[in-house]
Amino acid sequence: MVLEVAFLHVIPGREAEFEAAFAKASTIIAAMHGYRSHRLDRCIEVTNKYLLLVQWEALEDHTVGFRSSDAYTEWKALLHHFYDPFPTVEHFTPVLANEQRQAE
Amino acid sequence: MVLEVAFLHVIPGREAEFEAAFAKASTIIAAMHGYRSHRLDRCIEVTNKYLLLVQWEALEDHTVGFRSSDAYTEWKALLHHFYDPFPTVEHFTPVLANEQRQAE
Repeated sequence: MVLEVAFLHVIPGREAEFEAAFAKASTIIAAMHGYRSHRLDRCIEVTNKYLLLVQWEALEDHTVGFRSSDAYTEWKALLHHFYDPFPTVEHFTPVLANEQRQAE
Repeated sequence: MVLEVAFLHVIPGREAEFEAAFAKASTIIAAMHGYRSHRLDRCIEVTNKYLLLVQWEALEDHTVGFRSSDAYTEWKALLHHFYDPFPTVEHFTPVLANEQRQAE
């Protein structure tokens, strides 16, 4: 399993529009080979900053499969114009994970 | 739910020692009030860089409850000497999440 990680800095004032576009774009990435899950979270301290996490079966499912697909062209058209600066994307592998505990 | 997010830059050459210390420290944070789950992942592109994600019930469970606890003193003693520079910690709230899909 590989975790794709990117901080997304959205042009201030366009957050609601970005979130709506991201909801549409989610169906694109979720249909890709090797896709496992994804989530988007918004920063409390810096409100135009988001964290994108995508779980892939393998690194190449993202770096080769997704990025060379027609689906990526659609993804870019929906999302990339919201970013300033353009995000740096990195990949991580699990070291340790502690499962979700039920609320007490 | 609030997601605590930090990139941890570990002094190069000390990664294995850090990972062992983190495994010990995990039991500390997992016992805190409001703790839900956490995970540590290591960067593929920058191998001394880690991503720490901790899910809390509420922001104050981390910023007040954990940080003012005796447990935090232990956590710091185990981990903080591995970091250079000292990490910036931010908090995020969910916008969208797509559940894990089973491997095909």
